[in-house]
Amino acid sequence: MIQSELSSKVENIAQKLELRQLVVIQFLVLISSKLRYTSRGLTRKLGLPQVHLYRLIHEFSDILEPKDVNIETKKDLTGEIANYAKKMLLGIKINQNAIKEMINKYQKNRPKPDRNLDQFNATMATTVKRVTKLASNGDLVGKEIAFLGDDDLVSIGVALTHQCKKITVFEIDDRLNNLIIQISQENNLNIEVVKQDLRQLIDKSHFGKYDLVFTDPPYTKGGINLFLNQAIKLIKKNFLGRIYLCYGNSDRAREREVEIQKLILDHNLIIKTKLNQFNKYYGAESIGSQSSLYILDWTPSTKTVELNFKKVYTND
Amino acid sequence: MIQSELSSKVENIAQKLELRQLVVIQFLVLISSKLRYTSRGLTRKLGLPQVHLYRLIHEFSDILEPKDVNIETKKDLTGEIANYAKKMLLGIKINQNAIKEMINKYQKNRPKPDRNLDQFNATMATTVKRVTKLASNGDLVGKEIAFLGDDDLVSIGVALTHQCKKITVFEIDDRLNNLIIQISQENNLNIEVVKQDLRQLIDKSHFGKYDLVFTDPPYTKGGINLFLNQAIKLIKKNFLGRIYLCYGNSDRAREREVEIQKLILDHNLIIKTKLNQFNKYYGAESIGSQSSLYILDWTPSTKTVELNFKKVYTND
Repeated sequence: MIQSELSSKVENIAQKLELRQLVVIQFLVLISSKLRYTSRGLTRKLGLPQVHLYRLIHEFSDILEPKDVNIETKKDLTGEIANYAKKMLLGIKINQNAIKEMINKYQKNRPKPDRNLDQFNATMATTVKRVTKLASNGDLVGKEIAFLGDDDLVSIGVALTHQCKKITVFEIDDRLNNLIIQISQENNLNIEVVKQDLRQLIDKSHFGKYDLVFTDPPYTKGGINLFLNQAIKLIKKNFLGRIYLCYGNSDRAREREVEIQKLILDHNLIIKTKLNQFNKYYGAESIGSQSSLYILDWTPSTKTVELNFKKVYTND
Repeated sequence: MIQSELSSKVENIAQKLELRQLVVIQFLVLISSKLRYTSRGLTRKLGLPQVHLYRLIHEFSDILEPKDVNIETKKDLTGEIANYAKKMLLGIKINQNAIKEMINKYQKNRPKPDRNLDQFNATMATTVKRVTKLASNGDLVGKEIAFLGDDDLVSIGVALTHQCKKITVFEIDDRLNNLIIQISQENNLNIEVVKQDLRQLIDKSHFGKYDLVFTDPPYTKGGINLFLNQAIKLIKKNFLGRIYLCYGNSDRAREREVEIQKLILDHNLIIKTKLNQFNKYYGAESIGSQSSLYILDWTPSTKTVELNFKKVYTND
């Protein structure tokens, strides 16, 4: 079995079972390792419910040793599969320095944050941390990613990994759009930039086209609600559809964040992960210069909701 | 200024401002370090909104250099304060091996999980990880902690750190209660054990007495709702009141977890942190042998809610 054959097999099975490719690759690492795993062991190692593990085993039955208590690859395939899986894992590693250098190179061209658009620049470390988190969650390889606003230039960091299938930035601020286009062209990053006021309808040709949407929206109820609605329109309607949402407020205004969390759940998105104080900013001292990262997963009942809030940006 | 004086000063200010002692100690580390911080720098480093930082500065004004752009301790106090703060931080470090050894020592005495009580044993690594997380969140030093059920013996791990003021286990299973009492007595851990069916009223003398409640309840709507109600009765009604809640379900039954998250927010608790697949178990293969850890903070509108669900344990 040649590498390209394995590669497309992994891609197809991941797509069919609606699993991240990273999980499928981790499965291959385990079944081709010298340690021998039962299905129970694999369940625990992968954190994959038994039912999904069985589906995975079924899909890969042609490369597995039949009738064994341990789930193992056929002897003559073990080396090849182990090599492929390890190589894939290595390829997922992020070159953090390359991202820092690239953003540093264009630092002087970056526009001053526009407070009317609730722009606050995240620190360089935060931009890198976001890309690293996307990678470790299996959210880069083969993915189509949209950014709703991108004053932190995360799209550049993501593009530099050369792991995604497609990157689109929807941004209202022409100063940022021009900068991202410039960086993209000068470095062959192939980022698509769409000038978009997110208070307006997004062109329908983009609907349901993205595995993932990343956004650090205005921190008002209206802003969160509007950006979530737009994100939900953009994501593919399957178990891989995911939204990364940044949101912060003062620790003493907790009831405000409870309202935001209720809004998120009104959309029937699941709060898969919430990392407190994940993002750091220059400025934004009233909220401790930090915000949380929410990772929101699509559910079969995920929906857009009516916009009851007139205020989107803080100054509206 | 002697160490005991500093120590009680820190304790009092933390209590007055409703901040974790760990944050106050980190503040002291920064202002007594050779690096010089402006209030902006401190805000970013501590993740503390500016308003709270100013309150902290105000409370410590007697040890601070007056009229300086940088926030610094008075020259003659710097050494003493730096030593105190570093010693405190060191004291917070967890001896993971001691916890493992202790639980191993009593491993043979542990009762078999009772499925009628939805017991599933977490792995040893998970018990240690929970204690470590409590410590790094500043949730051990000087705290009064309650466990609603404790088949994973986290109370033992917590007691071994000797950082808490009080530890109480509310548990229905006498086999566990006897084991915890035995371990506590043989090792002077001073754990209070209360035999408690959590479907029944908890004695009012415990209400509002705990900074923190830890629970890995039955994963039904009724179970989550009931245990949250009990936890809310037990916690102190201030900004330090916090609940650690474990919950897991299959990744394909996402709508079920959305319902659980809505339940949490019905209590007007804030989901401060949610760590996906934090806990690992022996068994529980249908949910991938893993569950999430929710860290829920009190808000001024936190409340108990009516119990609309008859089913508490899965077999009810």
